[in-house]
Amino acid sequence: MARRPEHKEERREAILAAARELAGERPVREISLGDIARRVGLAKSNLLRYFESREDVFLRMLLREWESWRISLTERLRPGGATADNVATTIARTLAERPLFCDLISEMSAVLERNVSVAAVQAFKSQSLDKVDDLGAVVAERMPDLDGPHARETIAAALIITAGLWPIANPAPHVTAMYAEDPALTRAHVDFESRLQQLLSALIKGFLSTETRIGSH
Amino acid sequence: MARRPEHKEERREAILAAARELAGERPVREISLGDIARRVGLAKSNLLRYFESREDVFLRMLLREWESWRISLTERLRPGGATADNVATTIARTLAERPLFCDLISEMSAVLERNVSVAAVQAFKSQSLDKVDDLGAVVAERMPDLDGPHARETIAAALIITAGLWPIANPAPHVTAMYAEDPALTRAHVDFESRLQQLLSALIKGFLSTETRIGSH
Repeated sequence: MARRPEHKEERREAILAAARELAGERPVREISLGDIARRVGLAKSNLLRYFESREDVFLRMLLREWESWRISLTERLRPGGATADNVATTIARTLAERPLFCDLISEMSAVLERNVSVAAVQAFKSQSLDKVDDLGAVVAERMPDLDGPHARETIAAALIITAGLWPIANPAPHVTAMYAEDPALTRAHVDFESRLQQLLSALIKGFLSTETRIGSH
Repeated sequence: MARRPEHKEERREAILAAARELAGERPVREISLGDIARRVGLAKSNLLRYFESREDVFLRMLLREWESWRISLTERLRPGGATADNVATTIARTLAERPLFCDLISEMSAVLERNVSVAAVQAFKSQSLDKVDDLGAVVAERMPDLDGPHARETIAAALIITAGLWPIANPAPHVTAMYAEDPALTRAHVDFESRLQQLLSALIKGFLSTETRIGSH
């Protein structure tokens, strides 16, 4: 009885590791609960003693990726100059470095949050919103000209744009091949990092232009 | 033999009408090929003589919704003053009036474009990009201060943000109920139209602030 919670935690970690391994091989939407169970060597029914559903596994993974992004962005936003372009570049770069996070963010609301219990969404939402608040405060500190709500909105917007842009920038292989071959469709090709950077830079400049500077800091 | 193409067109229209009816009842992601076949009264194998797949039906529907949006936005952008706020408000309003279009846009790249042939994606991409170009030209005409590429990017960004924001603003019913009950999660509630309006308005202002006005027209 004593080692049971510890054992349960180990099993959860093994399941998450297997799911993460699969997510390195193909998009999250193509990974089923059965795939994860097979990879970790458990029966599906046994796996469901550790997680509510496939979506519960991926929401847990998303929170970890989100925390890793929060730490990295906080570190890299600290030094140097704080122009709209700097901040946009750092946000876009740190997101582009995390394809799994971007993939999970693009599945978050349409799929992942739909197939778990209220309690699971509640815990997920609460933690993820705290991370957005936290990063918003970091951006506000780095750019004293930007007010707090706009600094937070910069982070929220980066995630909203990522959710919409990631699937557009990463089409199926046969679509990517077609873009390369058909000159008329070259403009359909989207580079995730540069497009996100440009949109965020313009967005921050727009926020700054609407603020009456109250001279914070 | 003579009336065959006509008959085929009639069948395609009946299938599209059935799919559209279903899309008025629940999100597109919850509608299968079998659902559409049952509603229109055809066997699945028979339906597949008129469309490649479920996704082919919805891409066709998306093009029609897109065209309807193009016409409406073109009309409503014509008169009145052309500030960033005006343009953002009209774009956000015309999108919010079209929940089916927004739903289809949010499924477009991750799902719909993945499960059709190269020829079908090619035709779809070509037509949809033309509509973006066309609306970009309308925005450029309305706001002479905004250069052509930024005017086009305003339209493209509206669709990228819609793809990311629509699922966040329209969670599953049990999630919506939870937001209403838990005061700590009030900030998780997102209003699609006002959030899109604010982001687009800031984005256009940011584009304007980066341009050296060359006095177009």
